[in-house]
Amino acid sequence: MKRRDFLRAGAATALTAPSVTAPAIAQSAPEIKWRMTSSFSKSLETVFGTSQVLCRYVAEASDGKFQIQPFQAGELVHSLQALDAVSSGSVECAHTPTYFYVNKDPTLGFGTGIPFGLNSRHQLSWWTFGGGGELVNTSLKRLNAYGIPAGVTGVQMGAWFRKEINGVDDLKGLRFRISGMGAPILAKVGAAPQHMPNSDVYAALEQGTLDAAEFVCPHDDERLGLAKVAKYNYYPCWWESGGMLHMIVNLEKWNALPKSYQAIVARACEAATAWMLAKYDVLNPPALKRMVAAGAVLRPFPQPLMEAFYRTTKEHVAELAGKDGHFKKALESTNAFRKEQVPWWEISEHAYDSFVISTRGRA
Amino acid sequence: MKRRDFLRAGAATALTAPSVTAPAIAQSAPEIKWRMTSSFSKSLETVFGTSQVLCRYVAEASDGKFQIQPFQAGELVHSLQALDAVSSGSVECAHTPTYFYVNKDPTLGFGTGIPFGLNSRHQLSWWTFGGGGELVNTSLKRLNAYGIPAGVTGVQMGAWFRKEINGVDDLKGLRFRISGMGAPILAKVGAAPQHMPNSDVYAALEQGTLDAAEFVCPHDDERLGLAKVAKYNYYPCWWESGGMLHMIVNLEKWNALPKSYQAIVARACEAATAWMLAKYDVLNPPALKRMVAAGAVLRPFPQPLMEAFYRTTKEHVAELAGKDGHFKKALESTNAFRKEQVPWWEISEHAYDSFVISTRGRA
Repeated sequence: MKRRDFLRAGAATALTAPSVTAPAIAQSAPEIKWRMTSSFSKSLETVFGTSQVLCRYVAEASDGKFQIQPFQAGELVHSLQALDAVSSGSVECAHTPTYFYVNKDPTLGFGTGIPFGLNSRHQLSWWTFGGGGELVNTSLKRLNAYGIPAGVTGVQMGAWFRKEINGVDDLKGLRFRISGMGAPILAKVGAAPQHMPNSDVYAALEQGTLDAAEFVCPHDDERLGLAKVAKYNYYPCWWESGGMLHMIVNLEKWNALPKSYQAIVARACEAATAWMLAKYDVLNPPALKRMVAAGAVLRPFPQPLMEAFYRTTKEHVAELAGKDGHFKKALESTNAFRKEQVPWWEISEHAYDSFVISTRGRA
Repeated sequence: MKRRDFLRAGAATALTAPSVTAPAIAQSAPEIKWRMTSSFSKSLETVFGTSQVLCRYVAEASDGKFQIQPFQAGELVHSLQALDAVSSGSVECAHTPTYFYVNKDPTLGFGTGIPFGLNSRHQLSWWTFGGGGELVNTSLKRLNAYGIPAGVTGVQMGAWFRKEINGVDDLKGLRFRISGMGAPILAKVGAAPQHMPNSDVYAALEQGTLDAAEFVCPHDDERLGLAKVAKYNYYPCWWESGGMLHMIVNLEKWNALPKSYQAIVARACEAATAWMLAKYDVLNPPALKRMVAAGAVLRPFPQPLMEAFYRTTKEHVAELAGKDGHFKKALESTNAFRKEQVPWWEISEHAYDSFVISTRGRA
């Protein structure tokens, strides 16, 4: 079956659910079945697990009346076509990072977080109370979709290099596998960013056709075996500091839901966001420990390199802002938000964590 | 009306709701009305607001069938008697910090977080996947109650002092208003901790019958006007690093809820937790800025003082662990959890935040 036919068949299946376009008042708790296309494979068990948890939460709260079935990338549509499938209504919803779709609208980058963007906590408060949700949803609305945060990774793992990186010169021509807006930044500092499926990264690093790669978090990086073929891990991950994912819903499908189901989905997404972060927080530290025990070498990016990345990012986003007024608005919004946040963060979380870190190794 | 009569009347009112002890299968979406007693006054608008948001979420997801009405402290029962009211069933549920009840069971301190405890993100992951929820709920079960996290403050604001604090000697005899387990720690380093209602703190500092005070977050501290009468604010707040609140439900009432309502409450609590943190994150920075503009002086606690607080806390909790096996288990659990977390935190969130802080003040 061709994909187009398959999608049409899927849409027909979805229509066997009771009409959800009827006014909510007609039936406050109708039986509804939706499909959710994830942009991730089941092997990314925490990320894909988040979509499973989200769907389970919706079913539980609706007493089984509202069922959403998650599908891993490729089962219904390709990973990068999740938003298209939702826009067209061939799938009711998706679990995907909005930065996959910056070619449609660069402001979608702010949904996931741009390089040197907000940390996950600030990303969540910016989304909820800082105007972020409205800005990103303005872009999604043009694509006939509505987005709700459904997962954050926190600051991700740094990148894996086959050789030590001591300065900008060591990046020249470096074949670096990276997703998202980190790629053009790295290109500007002289590296040669590569797009490559996760499944090919290990072999490419082993064979030396790739020099460096970034993926997700220690738990996932360990699964790919990156430390075995590129032992130098440089941190922090300035290209993915928040790592927000979204549940993206077709706009008509969303508007047709009874208000109580909209509330159930919204709470399920917020709860799944907390689930994902907490799950990563228990899985990542032991994975990191095992990788270090197996020979991974953790190094901070040298400060001049961080400064070069930061400066280049600023230039890059300024260029984008010059071409797109909505992007400019989102950029100014996040910049202003962070500028406001930092002084409080510094004397609260950061000061406390600094002391806790200083006690590391004590009884 | 005496309080006892009032409570009885309240319980009778609650019984006008359809029987919730009937098997869930009999009626999957019954109409239920509950009352929630908060340990906080409405003037703490973010904390009390969290209970309002939580109750609204439950009503929305249940299509108005499950109504919980929040009452500020004192309306039904005194702030510190919220757990008693829930245990006895005179109120169905409460919004309260479990550390108010350490005299009943010291392990309840871990529900909110003990001095030099986990930060709010680790508190949440410890609760969810690190055994924390089971440990604290073992204590609550003995009191006929079940607890679900419903709010975190993050690391709170430091303490306000009328004079500069340069070393341990400056704490001798200092009359210091503080809640929770921070009080015995301060007493051991020589200060004179005081219990005092929020409403009296300003006048006491102004008149000099109090030398120092801690409250909650910049947004709340600004409302109390603390900076005007005690301008030196010392950070970080090592006595409240997570600030977790709970929805505490009478155990029989909880068990009698239909499974779908239990799910709705659980998700409402998780979503309200995110709401509270995000809300504080947007309110605190501008409040801090205004206080500094009005003359507040921010100072880090000198390192030797932090070390003294830390050492004394370790001694204090070791004493408690020697007397109570369950407390010992919870202490070992949080210590092990943090020991595992710190190395990853250091190279992810902390390293990233450190760089962001270093860019403060740049364009």
